[in-house]
Amino acid sequence: MTNSLFSRFTPKEPDFFPLLNEMSDVLLVASDLMVECVQHQDHASAIEFYNKIKKQEKRGDELSNSVFDKLNSTFLTPFDREDIHILADKLDDVTDRINSCAKRIVLYNPKQIPATAVDLAKLIKEGAVYINKAVTNLESLKNNSKNVQEYCSALHDIENKADDVYEQFIINLFNEEKDGIEVIKLKEIMYELEKATDAAHQVGKIIKTIIVKYA
Amino acid sequence: MTNSLFSRFTPKEPDFFPLLNEMSDVLLVASDLMVECVQHQDHASAIEFYNKIKKQEKRGDELSNSVFDKLNSTFLTPFDREDIHILADKLDDVTDRINSCAKRIVLYNPKQIPATAVDLAKLIKEGAVYINKAVTNLESLKNNSKNVQEYCSALHDIENKADDVYEQFIINLFNEEKDGIEVIKLKEIMYELEKATDAAHQVGKIIKTIIVKYA
Amino acid sequence: MTNSLFSRFTPKEPDFFPLLNEMSDVLLVASDLMVECVQHQDHASAIEFYNKIKKQEKRGDELSNSVFDKLNSTFLTPFDREDIHILADKLDDVTDRINSCAKRIVLYNPKQIPATAVDLAKLIKEGAVYINKAVTNLESLKNNSKNVQEYCSALHDIENKADDVYEQFIINLFNEEKDGIEVIKLKEIMYELEKATDAAHQVGKIIKTIIVKYA
Repeated sequence: MTNSLFSRFTPKEPDFFPLLNEMSDVLLVASDLMVECVQHQDHASAIEFYNKIKKQEKRGDELSNSVFDKLNSTFLTPFDREDIHILADKLDDVTDRINSCAKRIVLYNPKQIPATAVDLAKLIKEGAVYINKAVTNLESLKNNSKNVQEYCSALHDIENKADDVYEQFIINLFNEEKDGIEVIKLKEIMYELEKATDAAHQVGKIIKTIIVKYA
Repeated sequence: MTNSLFSRFTPKEPDFFPLLNEMSDVLLVASDLMVECVQHQDHASAIEFYNKIKKQEKRGDELSNSVFDKLNSTFLTPFDREDIHILADKLDDVTDRINSCAKRIVLYNPKQIPATAVDLAKLIKEGAVYINKAVTNLESLKNNSKNVQEYCSALHDIENKADDVYEQFIINLFNEEKDGIEVIKLKEIMYELEKATDAAHQVGKIIKTIIVKYA
Repeated sequence: MTNSLFSRFTPKEPDFFPLLNEMSDVLLVASDLMVECVQHQDHASAIEFYNKIKKQEKRGDELSNSVFDKLNSTFLTPFDREDIHILADKLDDVTDRINSCAKRIVLYNPKQIPATAVDLAKLIKEGAVYINKAVTNLESLKNNSKNVQEYCSALHDIENKADDVYEQFIINLFNEEKDGIEVIKLKEIMYELEKATDAAHQVGKIIKTIIVKYA
């Protein structure tokens, strides 16, 4: 219990938690915007939500760069460093995927956003809530490892659900859509949404690794 | 010779080899199923083989997770840890690619599986056999480094052959197939097959690195 | 200032700089060839330039393999090793992207290379020049860190410009091109060009990290 990463660096390195927490807040805001974005069918709304999501993505980038800079200028053992680095990186990946998806909606301007896009966006949102809880509890991991473990398992379940939604969407798309260009557009937009839940699952995996090592 | 990774950790860490061997067995079974899968043109067979491959993929996931858990709870020097981690990761990637390909065949349900898909699947199978031999010999790497080196070189040659098959396929596809949706389907399915040989080559590269360090 | 990576390993490890310099030369040649390649509309020229680019890509591969072999057989601390490894890897990625793009031009043989492909190729070339300057100055990083920092920032700006060019291209493509197969071809070719500037930006990011640690 005493060799916890976080208990060890907390006294001398109190700066990583606020940054990681803020990264997960950014992700939460982006996922909320994504849910709203896919519920609008008009191009003007898509542009509006994309611009808002892009701001979050830029903020996420700044925060992950702050984490990397701090890591590089701070003495930590290689493993501590690596774990924090990967965690910040994976958190950033989820927000990036949400941003990529919103960008594609704007650039591709498909005839219609599929109803299942809302299902996927809601799964991303659900994942962002669990990530937020998990990251918030990292600082007191020793007392909360069981809860955090459960949040990570929830991320795994969410990814499986998103996989099923995506697969059924693809089957329907190829059965119903005969316009090759619409197929390209919708397939990529939905792929990015599904990959966002995959990226959220990766966050869960790295947090599980941190639990094994330090809780 | 005495500072071999594997001779060093063999006495205290005898558990990594069986896991890695089992991962390469899983890959071998998956590659056999892939060869059979692409030789059937009906959708029912595709579903049947995909379900069998998916089981192997899940088993591969479990095994690589066992490797990661063991690495995290075991004292090893950073390099030993990193090499085993990457090796398990790359082995898993090959099986994942095979699974992705089978999944796409099922979801996309193309009008016809191209004959060249069988050529690629056989190259994947050939690669899986070399990987299996190489991984089996890791435990006695000091006495077999020359053989293992040859298996790794064979993986490089196989990837080059697969590249040529894929490139010729793409040229023909764009010359002959005028249905954009079929182009999307077949291009992606064949791409995944080619990427599986690429992933097998990556396994060869990491094993070569291990030879340089420890044999 | 005295614990500089490069000042420390210069006396005993003088071999990394020539290899890294040569890698950035290879990239420069490849980027020049790419600019020429996209200015020709006939397939015979595309094949000719692709073959020349492929030679550079193979040379880049050999050089990065030499770096990896040297790293594995040389005593260095984990961080030194990791930084050189990642730098060589990222340099290689830029050349790989250029090669992928040239290969796709040859395999897909689109009806026309878009004029904006020349814009993107010129941005890649510009990036290769900055990378070349930055890598050349690594050996004397302590005296040049400010210049090197500026080259890295330039790579960031170039990537943003390439993003804008690519995004405008995609909007126009979906508005104007009604042939699904041409859309697939041009979208992927332009995507690879844009990704080359992204890969160049990654080189800048790793060099910035090296500056923070050692300059």
